Amino acid sequence: MSRPKRAVILLSGGLDSATVLAEASGMGFEIYALTVLYGQRHEIESAAANRVAKAFGVARHVEQRIDLRAFGGSALTDDIGVPKDRDEAEMADGIPITYVPARNTIFLSLALAWAETLGAFDIFVGVNCVDYSGYPDCRPEYLRAFENLANLATKAGVEGSGRFQIHAPLLTMTKDQIIARGMKLGVDYGLTHSCYDPTPAGGSCGRCDSCRLRLAAFEKLGLKDPILYVVD
Amino acid sequence: MSRPKRAVILLSGGLDSATVLAEASGMGFEIYALTVLYGQRHEIESAAANRVAKAFGVARHVEQRIDLRAFGGSALTDDIGVPKDRDEAEMADGIPITYVPARNTIFLSLALAWAETLGAFDIFVGVNCVDYSGYPDCRPEYLRAFENLANLATKAGVEGSGRFQIHAPLLTMTKDQIIARGMKLGVDYGLTHSCYDPTPAGGSCGRCDSCRLRLAAFEKLGLKDPILYVVD
Repeated sequence: MSRPKRAVILLSGGLDSATVLAEASGMGFEIYALTVLYGQRHEIESAAANRVAKAFGVARHVEQRIDLRAFGGSALTDDIGVPKDRDEAEMADGIPITYVPARNTIFLSLALAWAETLGAFDIFVGVNCVDYSGYPDCRPEYLRAFENLANLATKAGVEGSGRFQIHAPLLTMTKDQIIARGMKLGVDYGLTHSCYDPTPAGGSCGRCDSCRLRLAAFEKLGLKDPILYVVD
Repeated sequence: MSRPKRAVILLSGGLDSATVLAEASGMGFEIYALTVLYGQRHEIESAAANRVAKAFGVARHVEQRIDLRAFGGSALTDDIGVPKDRDEAEMADGIPITYVPARNTIFLSLALAWAETLGAFDIFVGVNCVDYSGYPDCRPEYLRAFENLANLATKAGVEGSGRFQIHAPLLTMTKDQIIARGMKLGVDYGLTHSCYDPTPAGGSCGRCDSCRLRLAAFEKLGLKDPILYVVD
């Protein structure tokens, strides 16, 4: 019996990355989950990532903390307000205020370092371009460029023992398609967290872009979102 | 009078990055120095980076700490021995034991995040392919791939307000050429640190690959290396 192939999964504890983890697990990979905490306000994500990793019995879950606040520049890292109650047109307009400079590049670089150390060539990431088209580091051309870089950057890539692949299985799925897929794969979305502006105890606001997209998707499926929303 | 352009410099506190900082400063950039400490044994580098940053009066010096030990896999991050007394042929053979998976990709990603936040498009890195040809992430094709990625990954790159450039001014220089250049630019190499296996007080071993390359380069120039070597 051959050992299962290993994969590194970027796990934020959100809905998307939980689905991606389930997808990689369903493909037979041994899962190494990487959570990068980058000085955002809500380390509640850390707890969610732990719950999801545990639920799927991953081989290992590593957290890396990076202080992106030292650089500044985003709603998720600075103390500027999170926009609320925006409609879909407003959300879709331009690069979101929640854009974090080079975030996915930093995340994928760390995943690459771990993958090479593990002898893994498969990296999974929950990026998605449908609901939220404004993030430059969620586009297919970006992901291809990173894949190219990964194979030039590493001993494993250069020595030809394999080729790194960045898997983004959610890339062209809408939020409700993602949830429907995850339900089939056995994801318990009650373990996940999406809100940009949660209460200290972890309740979701229901009004930021992330909550609104999530709520609308569950509604479209005729399902109730299992997480707790705290209305002002 | 126009404001000087900003640049982010990856500053390890070693000889090469100090020279690169001097080069960027000489080109008229306002300097933002980034030191990434990645769980190597010798945080003595941190002190050296601080000395160099201060000597050049940089606009800002930020340290980021990442625990690459959580991933394992290198002489600089694990507790395996540092090779000593190797000759040039041995050093040049294959990918060095001191290779750290995806190290430059992680460093450049962090530099990119900061650059975008600062409105800077110029990133300087002290990589060099001559003395030590084995690192895959020191090759020109790697640097070009990162540059390409940077311009796809970011709001600044996509919106076309500029194009990110990765400057590697030492790329094709030998160690003695680097030192000669740095002396012209006013670098005090007594502030820098290169040893892979220093004493707790910061003395250099004189026998690891890094010390040997450095010592040989000073000798070739007929100069005395100003740092302290502690002989066993």
